[in-house]
Amino acid sequence: MSAEPGSRVLLQDLSEEEILDRILPLLHPGGPGGAIVGPGDDAAVVTAPEPMVVTTDSMIRARDWRDDWSSAGDVAVKLGAQNISDIAAMGGVATGAVLTITADPLTSIDWVESFATGLGQWCAAAGVEVVGGDLSSAPPGVLQVSLTMWGSLEGRSPVLRSGARPGDIVAVCGSLGWSDAGLASYLAGDPDPERGPEVPMADRKLDSWRWFHRSPRPPWEAGPVAAAAGASAMIDLSDGLVRDAGRVATASGVRIDLDRAALEADFVGVLADVVPADQAWRHVLGGGEEHSLLATFPDAASVPRSEQAPWWIIGRVTEGAGVTLDGEPVEVVGWDHFRR
Amino acid sequence: MSAEPGSRVLLQDLSEEEILDRILPLLHPGGPGGAIVGPGDDAAVVTAPEPMVVTTDSMIRARDWRDDWSSAGDVAVKLGAQNISDIAAMGGVATGAVLTITADPLTSIDWVESFATGLGQWCAAAGVEVVGGDLSSAPPGVLQVSLTMWGSLEGRSPVLRSGARPGDIVAVCGSLGWSDAGLASYLAGDPDPERGPEVPMADRKLDSWRWFHRSPRPPWEAGPVAAAAGASAMIDLSDGLVRDAGRVATASGVRIDLDRAALEADFVGVLADVVPADQAWRHVLGGGEEHSLLATFPDAASVPRSEQAPWWIIGRVTEGAGVTLDGEPVEVVGWDHFRR
Repeated sequence: MSAEPGSRVLLQDLSEEEILDRILPLLHPGGPGGAIVGPGDDAAVVTAPEPMVVTTDSMIRARDWRDDWSSAGDVAVKLGAQNISDIAAMGGVATGAVLTITADPLTSIDWVESFATGLGQWCAAAGVEVVGGDLSSAPPGVLQVSLTMWGSLEGRSPVLRSGARPGDIVAVCGSLGWSDAGLASYLAGDPDPERGPEVPMADRKLDSWRWFHRSPRPPWEAGPVAAAAGASAMIDLSDGLVRDAGRVATASGVRIDLDRAALEADFVGVLADVVPADQAWRHVLGGGEEHSLLATFPDAASVPRSEQAPWWIIGRVTEGAGVTLDGEPVEVVGWDHFRR
Repeated sequence: MSAEPGSRVLLQDLSEEEILDRILPLLHPGGPGGAIVGPGDDAAVVTAPEPMVVTTDSMIRARDWRDDWSSAGDVAVKLGAQNISDIAAMGGVATGAVLTITADPLTSIDWVESFATGLGQWCAAAGVEVVGGDLSSAPPGVLQVSLTMWGSLEGRSPVLRSGARPGDIVAVCGSLGWSDAGLASYLAGDPDPERGPEVPMADRKLDSWRWFHRSPRPPWEAGPVAAAAGASAMIDLSDGLVRDAGRVATASGVRIDLDRAALEADFVGVLADVVPADQAWRHVLGGGEEHSLLATFPDAASVPRSEQAPWWIIGRVTEGAGVTLDGEPVEVVGWDHFRR
């Protein structure tokens, strides 16, 4: 595990300056943004939002992605999505970021350039400016990318995990279980369907979930909309619906009761057309890396209505603790970085 | 290379929440600081400086440190120093940071706790608040730590690399060559001297340079002082005096002519008591990871006078390009992350 097959120019064939000269223009495809001092000095200088929402998220090869599934561009999109989703879950709008790349010198410059191209395009679409970063060498085989991203609350209060109150409505914006279903399809070794008009719908779905797993497109614009609509609590669904809902329940000192029929109708059904129903439920309740938004609202009338980024009511906040499904305890599933 | 010998509890024996419960209090030994929303939600919310200076720097085991030389606390101090030095080199005062730890689940919790303790103490001394972060798992053997740090210019303009003008005075604050001399001593396998009154002065010096290599204490307070005094350009010496001076020369479109006698008197001599003179010169001209500050000033009168953090005049800015020593070309030495 070192140099990519077929790559010609490796990082070790270039100096730091030469590498930076290649990738910095790719990070700013639309030209320099609003940074007062951009990349190239000891530090960047920017006009920061007041107050500033700030988060950081990293991805490392062989743990967070596999090169045989994900392109460098996929990794860039996923890294951006993970970060912006945390900003959105506070009700914020992302504006800036710094990037870290820690790479084995045997990494191909092609990978790094493709990553920078993908991130630059993603940032242009998301309204985020990469103002600086750090490029460091790593031991053999290691390739890690990390973003620290910040944004604005646009005058609103941050939406915390701790604000849910008994009686609130629980709603989700975005998909549930797609990333996990895509991962399961990869792990099962499902063949990549030929793309064309004759591909069965089931294979098209698998393909789209695999695509979503590699390069999710969470509904980050919905975070500020929910905040403006009066969301009482909100969280980015990164580790699974039950696990992340449990974090809101714990922080708020409440129980979150999920509605089986609503989940079935809005989320499980679309998966259960292709995979067994019990597996579809596991994807929906426990699947990580979805980066959809879970929020609570004081009443159904305050749940935002949007055709582009609809919110689906999937439960209710009650007195108590933990997460239940139609009032029954639900097995805790989800992703933990460390626990065996 | 995986679990530390003798460690009992590994990260994989704990959940993410349990790990965070252990380390977050260590990062804030003095209690919560000024963050509006600190660690524990999707993102932090802080009052950011206006404008904001921001930088990011990372360290990875087996490339940026060796466990047989550096303790977890040493790594924390060096990571802090690398970041704050970049803020200082803009004339800024660091105020906040987010932390990333990417660790093999077989890493001992002891290492992570010691790192957090060291970083918490360092931050308390440096006036920096860690407001959030990211804890992620890594493939076998990998341990990486990263900080994104920000700070304030306190109303001054940032001091860039591009502001040096012919006629300016070149000065350095802090040491030169110590980190590289310490590294060379480690690589040479010099024995650790017993600490006590009978230790020869040469061994004491080697010991102090090894200590500086593991956990540098650069003069970051001098950055804002230099900015206020009218420094025309400034850079953090991370990759060697000649290499970093060359960056200022290139950015400013000038030549930097170093003064051999001044370097000899103020920096080479102290090293040449212990190591051969040619090696001492290599440490001073090419040694990386020193994190001292190099600045240019419009005249000698504007160079700050301070007993605690003295500035040493080591050269002059002239017309031309590149870096010279008493007007003669100087072999380019220094650290490059990637070039073989």
